[in-house]
Amino acid sequence: MDFREKLHFEERPNDLFAVGELLVDMISDEYDDTFLSSGYTKYPGGSPSNIAINAQKLGIRSQIAACVGNDGFGEFLLERLRQEDVNTHFIQRAEESTSLVVVTKSRATPIPIFYRGADYRLAYTPQLEEALLHSKLVHFSCWPISRLPSRRTIERAIDAAAAHGVRIGFDPNYHRMIWQAGEDGVSYVKSILSKADIVKPSEDDAERLFGPDTPANQLEKFLELGAKLVILTLGKDGALVSNGKETREYATMASEVADTTGAGDAFWSGFYAASIKGYPLEEALRLGFAVSAYKLKYTGAVVDLPRLEDIKSQYRL
Amino acid sequence: MDFREKLHFEERPNDLFAVGELLVDMISDEYDDTFLSSGYTKYPGGSPSNIAINAQKLGIRSQIAACVGNDGFGEFLLERLRQEDVNTHFIQRAEESTSLVVVTKSRATPIPIFYRGADYRLAYTPQLEEALLHSKLVHFSCWPISRLPSRRTIERAIDAAAAHGVRIGFDPNYHRMIWQAGEDGVSYVKSILSKADIVKPSEDDAERLFGPDTPANQLEKFLELGAKLVILTLGKDGALVSNGKETREYATMASEVADTTGAGDAFWSGFYAASIKGYPLEEALRLGFAVSAYKLKYTGAVVDLPRLEDIKSQYRL
Repeated sequence: MDFREKLHFEERPNDLFAVGELLVDMISDEYDDTFLSSGYTKYPGGSPSNIAINAQKLGIRSQIAACVGNDGFGEFLLERLRQEDVNTHFIQRAEESTSLVVVTKSRATPIPIFYRGADYRLAYTPQLEEALLHSKLVHFSCWPISRLPSRRTIERAIDAAAAHGVRIGFDPNYHRMIWQAGEDGVSYVKSILSKADIVKPSEDDAERLFGPDTPANQLEKFLELGAKLVILTLGKDGALVSNGKETREYATMASEVADTTGAGDAFWSGFYAASIKGYPLEEALRLGFAVSAYKLKYTGAVVDLPRLEDIKSQYRL
Repeated sequence: MDFREKLHFEERPNDLFAVGELLVDMISDEYDDTFLSSGYTKYPGGSPSNIAINAQKLGIRSQIAACVGNDGFGEFLLERLRQEDVNTHFIQRAEESTSLVVVTKSRATPIPIFYRGADYRLAYTPQLEEALLHSKLVHFSCWPISRLPSRRTIERAIDAAAAHGVRIGFDPNYHRMIWQAGEDGVSYVKSILSKADIVKPSEDDAERLFGPDTPANQLEKFLELGAKLVILTLGKDGALVSNGKETREYATMASEVADTTGAGDAFWSGFYAASIKGYPLEEALRLGFAVSAYKLKYTGAVVDLPRLEDIKSQYRL
């Protein structure tokens, strides 16, 4: 993948197919290191749906496959997708409760409490396969690969995508707590890296997978494991991107930071939208960083993004 | 068990040992039939801890065995028990998240969403057995018997209690949703009834176990399955109590109803406290209904109960 060239996509009726977690985030209203605060607010969560919604706003077609419970939280998440005009045709329902993450905000590092339910019951259905093979690009994070049976669903999706020229984007957002005790999630995540066309670890992800090291060394480790294009994000220090032959540095474009939630998903959306719209890799990366910078100015995981072309002119790209 | 006689207890250093669920209730701030409301408030939950706290306030010694996660919700529940001066020595910690129930209040029937985690990991430990055999009475509900491994813990506790003269109180609060798909919870609950000294179903519990029928017929079904003393509560219509030979009717003592949450737990606490304090069955039942009536005047699952003797004189018993 040369920085001056366009990512090639097969001609397909859909652009982006995001597969994985769709869940509720329950976040404390106050900062509280004692866990004694009592008020919480619920938000729709799960990065695939954030990315699908963002991408649609930026001007590409997107679909999402996920699994929610037959419960009120499942209804809430479906209703939100409908409000955002996202197709809910590939949302499966399971007997288990809709997955939930509780975050009690903390001045120290907030430690989320995970309630995995329906999300990892995502099945590889003929409908899911059809949607996959009708898409240019499939995206997933560590959530669905962290548990069975959704891990098998992703493995089958990876095989089908590879066989049919669907591009694969993978967010190696490894967290020990979403894996089951006794499972070696780190090794599994490492084993998947070579199967993706694009991986975008954050510095924290890299440290959780490889231990502490310099950004340049971390980048090298992803490449050694077979990753083809590595976008290592460094927060306010921008990003390092390597295709294995050439490494480029990117400064952050963020001027104002109101809320960092969803900034990574905003990058993915902008990068995917730009790549699908035919911008060369170098420009698609800059457009991704611009969309992320735009999102950082506003509060919320998903903000009201303009079309990609508007962001392009706002950021003079 | 004659209505004029005292329940006999072995001499033991502790009075009541409540075993089972200790969890967080997350309840919506507003009534909402669409699940779109966003604000929730967290409360400590689980009837064994409500009963243990109440019983202590009424003037008997109580202990609780339960299992919570190594997380902020677990800390929150432990802190609350400490605030109520309940011994936390028998609270186990598990890798799983602290169990959580989300209730979105509804004008129709609210449908809770259950997130079972640590609660059913309760293990039968030497400490638990020692606490059990040092108690006059053990209490549990359907929560711990609905899943393994806590089901085995309760089965072992029942055997040890029976072998050592510890009285057994069982709340047959059967709900399909806390059992796993494919398991026959109804049959299991029925099979446990004969092992308890006291069972207290509500009319709804009876209907969930046996289908709709008259209160007198429902009472009969519990007795046929071997229950020794059945306290069938009928809401505003009071209660029917039978020892298999004689059935007595009790009118409600509630004058004001601010909140029905925890009314059943208040009955259990009052009935246990009175029985342990040596009141004959007839009086212990009336004192239980009086404690429940007292609780109904206030909002919250656990309210600031006075000593049992104060309630006795307030209700002229």
